[in-house]
Amino acid sequence: MEVDVARKILDTNDAHAGQNRERFAAAGVFVLNMMSSPGSGKTTLLEKTLVRIMPKIRCGVIVGDICTTNDADRLARSGAPVTQINTDAFGGDCHLAAHVIGKAADAFDLENLDLLIVENIGNLVCPAEFDIGENARTVVLSVTEGEDKPAKYPHMFRKCDSAVLNKTDLLPYLDFDMAAAEGFIHQVHPDMPIFQLSAKTEEGLSPWLNWLTTQVAENRSAR
Amino acid sequence: MEVDVARKILDTNDAHAGQNRERFAAAGVFVLNMMSSPGSGKTTLLEKTLVRIMPKIRCGVIVGDICTTNDADRLARSGAPVTQINTDAFGGDCHLAAHVIGKAADAFDLENLDLLIVENIGNLVCPAEFDIGENARTVVLSVTEGEDKPAKYPHMFRKCDSAVLNKTDLLPYLDFDMAAAEGFIHQVHPDMPIFQLSAKTEEGLSPWLNWLTTQVAENRSAR
Repeated sequence: MEVDVARKILDTNDAHAGQNRERFAAAGVFVLNMMSSPGSGKTTLLEKTLVRIMPKIRCGVIVGDICTTNDADRLARSGAPVTQINTDAFGGDCHLAAHVIGKAADAFDLENLDLLIVENIGNLVCPAEFDIGENARTVVLSVTEGEDKPAKYPHMFRKCDSAVLNKTDLLPYLDFDMAAAEGFIHQVHPDMPIFQLSAKTEEGLSPWLNWLTTQVAENRSAR
Repeated sequence: MEVDVARKILDTNDAHAGQNRERFAAAGVFVLNMMSSPGSGKTTLLEKTLVRIMPKIRCGVIVGDICTTNDADRLARSGAPVTQINTDAFGGDCHLAAHVIGKAADAFDLENLDLLIVENIGNLVCPAEFDIGENARTVVLSVTEGEDKPAKYPHMFRKCDSAVLNKTDLLPYLDFDMAAAEGFIHQVHPDMPIFQLSAKTEEGLSPWLNWLTTQVAENRSAR
């Protein structure tokens, strides 16, 4: 029973995601879906990213949380338009669904954006199942979570287009095997680009920014 | 639609959980459901806990993961009987459901256990919704995840009976406000016991062990 129901929910979601994708393509905006466990440092990475790429790249952000507007408040300081979704209003959903993103996108002047970043709910499982009509997906893994997470949560790493290994400033105080972590990632997703960085200290930020800005530029030139 | 379907799934789960609860009570085994984000250190905490409380307390463990038997392999070294559930076999479920726990419990001689610990899937959202027939619930939060998680994921902290703040050995290298974290926890769950500890260094482990062994002893004396 559960599996049939889940299939129906995902089919409905895929239809909404298709509509979003057409709409984003028509406006020429590149949409990045950022996913991770709670507390991996997505918001800090976004804060640092927005400062470096704006205003050359015109950015907007949709932030998903079950409760609070903490992250939207932090990101709004960048000057980018930010919309917070609180899934608590509709049952405490553990992911952002495509129809929710469709409604949130109404708050933006999409024609005047180059990049719309969706900071998904902190959850390494469910968000991977829900296409939101994005162009690319990035998974952020904090090195404090341990190197085996790509093996334990393979769907997320399989479905993403790049991976960030964040909080590398803490590596001296952890038993984290970086080569093993990259090996686990490439076992489930060969050749996926991996960016080792510390959003806090900004060490290693440039390769990540180059990847992101290249994606946006290619999307723009494809219009 | 989604909400109705979710209600039906949860009602079915609650019925299975009730059956589990009767069965565990009849056998006199105390069941603890441990939940957290991925990588909070649940398995390390359990390894250290089992060494300290066995064989005086006869323990069994059910470990939930989407993929891999890494955690079961680690925990089996304690000598406790361990059963690994891989939800990948039935759709990659993001939580352990009561009927799954019921089946996994068949592998144990429940009459000869004092404590059955369930290490749930690493997910700070969905597992909180699924009663598995446990006696108590503990949420583990790594201090690397940031102090605001109880406010952002209130359902989990509201439904648990105790909270562990793990990885305190990393506090010197983090901007983590312990008083704020405890404040956020007590905002959503006043008076919930909180245990600050480092499973890695074992600092602060005793108050946690006292709480757990007291729960088990009270369950035994209530028979």
